[in-house]
Amino acid sequence: MKLSEIAGRLNCRLAGDGDVEIVRIAGIDEAGQGDLTFVSNRKYVSHIKTTRASAIILGDDIPPVDIPSLRTDDPYLAFARALELFFVPREPDPGIHPTAVIAEDAQIGAGASIGAYAVIGSGCTIGERVTIHPHVVLYPEVSIGRDCVLHSFVTVREDCVVGNRVILQNGVVIGGDGFGFAPTKTGTFYKICQTGRVLIEDDVEIGANTTVDRAAVGDTVIRRGSKLDNLVQVGHGAQIGEDCVLAAQVGVAGSTRIGSRVMVGGQVGFAGHLDVGDGAIITAQSGTSHDIPAGGVVSGSPAFENAAWLRSTAIFPRLPQLMRRIRDLEKEVRQLKNIVENQENRGD
Amino acid sequence: MKLSEIAGRLNCRLAGDGDVEIVRIAGIDEAGQGDLTFVSNRKYVSHIKTTRASAIILGDDIPPVDIPSLRTDDPYLAFARALELFFVPREPDPGIHPTAVIAEDAQIGAGASIGAYAVIGSGCTIGERVTIHPHVVLYPEVSIGRDCVLHSFVTVREDCVVGNRVILQNGVVIGGDGFGFAPTKTGTFYKICQTGRVLIEDDVEIGANTTVDRAAVGDTVIRRGSKLDNLVQVGHGAQIGEDCVLAAQVGVAGSTRIGSRVMVGGQVGFAGHLDVGDGAIITAQSGTSHDIPAGGVVSGSPAFENAAWLRSTAIFPRLPQLMRRIRDLEKEVRQLKNIVENQENRGD
Amino acid sequence: MKLSEIAGRLNCRLAGDGDVEIVRIAGIDEAGQGDLTFVSNRKYVSHIKTTRASAIILGDDIPPVDIPSLRTDDPYLAFARALELFFVPREPDPGIHPTAVIAEDAQIGAGASIGAYAVIGSGCTIGERVTIHPHVVLYPEVSIGRDCVLHSFVTVREDCVVGNRVILQNGVVIGGDGFGFAPTKTGTFYKICQTGRVLIEDDVEIGANTTVDRAAVGDTVIRRGSKLDNLVQVGHGAQIGEDCVLAAQVGVAGSTRIGSRVMVGGQVGFAGHLDVGDGAIITAQSGTSHDIPAGGVVSGSPAFENAAWLRSTAIFPRLPQLMRRIRDLEKEVRQLKNIVENQENRGD
Repeated sequence: MKLSEIAGRLNCRLAGDGDVEIVRIAGIDEAGQGDLTFVSNRKYVSHIKTTRASAIILGDDIPPVDIPSLRTDDPYLAFARALELFFVPREPDPGIHPTAVIAEDAQIGAGASIGAYAVIGSGCTIGERVTIHPHVVLYPEVSIGRDCVLHSFVTVREDCVVGNRVILQNGVVIGGDGFGFAPTKTGTFYKICQTGRVLIEDDVEIGANTTVDRAAVGDTVIRRGSKLDNLVQVGHGAQIGEDCVLAAQVGVAGSTRIGSRVMVGGQVGFAGHLDVGDGAIITAQSGTSHDIPAGGVVSGSPAFENAAWLRSTAIFPRLPQLMRRIRDLEKEVRQLKNIVENQENRGD
Repeated sequence: MKLSEIAGRLNCRLAGDGDVEIVRIAGIDEAGQGDLTFVSNRKYVSHIKTTRASAIILGDDIPPVDIPSLRTDDPYLAFARALELFFVPREPDPGIHPTAVIAEDAQIGAGASIGAYAVIGSGCTIGERVTIHPHVVLYPEVSIGRDCVLHSFVTVREDCVVGNRVILQNGVVIGGDGFGFAPTKTGTFYKICQTGRVLIEDDVEIGANTTVDRAAVGDTVIRRGSKLDNLVQVGHGAQIGEDCVLAAQVGVAGSTRIGSRVMVGGQVGFAGHLDVGDGAIITAQSGTSHDIPAGGVVSGSPAFENAAWLRSTAIFPRLPQLMRRIRDLEKEVRQLKNIVENQENRGD
Repeated sequence: MKLSEIAGRLNCRLAGDGDVEIVRIAGIDEAGQGDLTFVSNRKYVSHIKTTRASAIILGDDIPPVDIPSLRTDDPYLAFARALELFFVPREPDPGIHPTAVIAEDAQIGAGASIGAYAVIGSGCTIGERVTIHPHVVLYPEVSIGRDCVLHSFVTVREDCVVGNRVILQNGVVIGGDGFGFAPTKTGTFYKICQTGRVLIEDDVEIGANTTVDRAAVGDTVIRRGSKLDNLVQVGHGAQIGEDCVLAAQVGVAGSTRIGSRVMVGGQVGFAGHLDVGDGAIITAQSGTSHDIPAGGVVSGSPAFENAAWLRSTAIFPRLPQLMRRIRDLEKEVRQLKNIVENQENRGD
């Protein structure tokens, strides 16, 4: 495809030779002849000079470059769309595989694809054009919206509800029992029935082997547009707002409510029963047992305001030096005191 | 069901109108007309005034309230039992699904339910009334006790032993190979056969996608009554005592022995070959490469005594202030020293 | 088997009675009559006196002991090999299980074993003597080398390539979609097609429920001989070098490149786009958003040089004491200042 045509399709400004023939999208270091590459992360601007790509997608703010470029105010989105011009996703096999075990009363939407060995429980509803890959298990009374994709080894447990255009990567567990036990007087734990549901709203994507638990009462909810990475844990009764991003291995304990547009770095932990305000940012490996206000940016374990945390962590490696300085001060003050007391005595 | 009847069944003291008709158990903020709610977490006591529930389960120590209440010294356990009065768990399909692949010499107890596409290996024994959901794999020579529930995509590997009334949530892996490799002189790693077993004792529950590894020699053991949340890792040869609680994403490295009634917060990490005493508490995100004494309460990474940790973490955000104070002291001491030395010189 | 014969097979020096009959390999505390045990971890040297084992494998550097011993400069490797003398691994069922769903154009190597309900997609190639346990899913166009073992509930997604002698424990997901979304002006996230592959080179082992993501463009690579424990996350486009060891629950964010022979402790987190040099060691629970030089040993979150970190963490519990000492100093300096100023005034 000619670069000029790509420019038109992506609504980018063309700078340089539009007749260059593009056959592939590639990373800046891997790209070669015929490849269109991109820079959206500042870290890679210096790689522009050495790339062997035939053309490059760049932000409007990057100075002119030697190779043909497509200019836009959003190079990352343009890259995402460019990929789609060249990538032909594999069509799932149409229809229902003969080995799928589907309850008689389950309702399957038009155009759905159901793979080998899928098990669809009684009372389930599956929307139009849903792709169920092989080896997916829906327990009874599950509802899946339109245009969803459920990958192999996904489980959706009884009564849970999944919206439209939801993507569940391989091994996701929706609606496993919440971790609820009442301690008894003999020191054992009494299991609390987990009778609630999990609701996954539209346009959510959930990463491989992530688990979202059901609660004893009430719903665990992931709201519209939120994206959860792999190996994330969402506890019973937690709520994740709209358009949140939770990186891999994050843990959200039970009943915690996370607002909208919250960004959570990898391996962050939230204690239970917290409120995290809209737009908050929690950096990687932080942990908190306190609420976080809307717009707050916090770090550390226990977490506090990010700018202050940066200052404290910068000093932390110098603690031995601080220790020495205190010791030196103590020595000097002791000496001074001796001198001054001698002077006082002499002065008497 | 009338509130007075619920009071009787739960052995609670009734305060207020016992004729109120209860149709559901619900959380304090979601509850409405006909709902029985509860407060067991102090954090929610203030919500009692605003709940629209028709009645409430409360501890004996909470002052009188405006709505009918059920009083008990253990409101959480009463709530757990109240739930069971209203929740009818779905019965698994009886018998063995025709698609299950069951070795000829496997023994299946009376009343067991085995779901679609389960695979039961040679020499396996499954106790009475066990529920094996669809898509469970038991490798050869596995023993499962009575009244267990194994959810979809559970694997129990060869030779492992599971006790009675054990619940394995979806995706649990029991008996994967331990992470054992001997370094060779050329810098590669030589795999050590993992010939041990995993033993899961009675009344254990294990959360979704949690992994419990087998060891090279000897058994990895989870003792009676312990509860593990989702995405927990238990390394080869580790032992977890009785009635322990391990929250989500905890990691226990190989050969570590955890005593009984130990409480472990989310994302905690234990190095290998440690001893953790009975009744110890390790708060969330802590990490230790040292033994923890019985009854110890520790926090932080590296972990130390919790009360001291609370004091240190309270100071940590003020490190820049401490730094300034040291700098100011140094300046003042320098000035004082100058003055004093001048005085000394004058005094000479 | 006689101890003398074992000595010969393992190339160990025999000390003591070679006629002892050995029937099993066992841990030092569990071993009894007829057992051969070993000590490779210094922590267990003191257990030699109390073991009831009939013989023991020991390093050349350990002083003489009372029971017959096999001496070697590498007791851990000798132990690994001793295990193989007594452990007969279960042979997988030969051939292809009739319930396996295998695409017509898939190529299966001689001697491969394919278990019940495995699903092998179109265009897949499986090497000789591969063991595919029940319930493995290979998406289309996957290539698996020779002598691999894929355990139950492993998924290898479309186009991914697995080398020779690779072991994938239960529930591993290779090639799930990377966590790539472009933010839009309305605050939603636009999914970026993940068109890259995952390449797993020869002799890699990957632990249960670990996930390795594919990237938008380019390959995610795990190089020859590296070992990943359970519940590890490898992000899109990351590269792990040769002979690395990643302990459980480690997270490697996208595009990070880890060199060769890097040792990573449990629950460590790497931010994206980093370079970690050959031979680096990152201790458990550390986290870094900075590059790590070759041979670097780092700890903490944020991580810095391990020896300095040990010193700082030793001081951290004494922060309250430091605080008091600063307060005392301030008081003393204030008093001294008063005295000195009085002296000055008097001196005037």
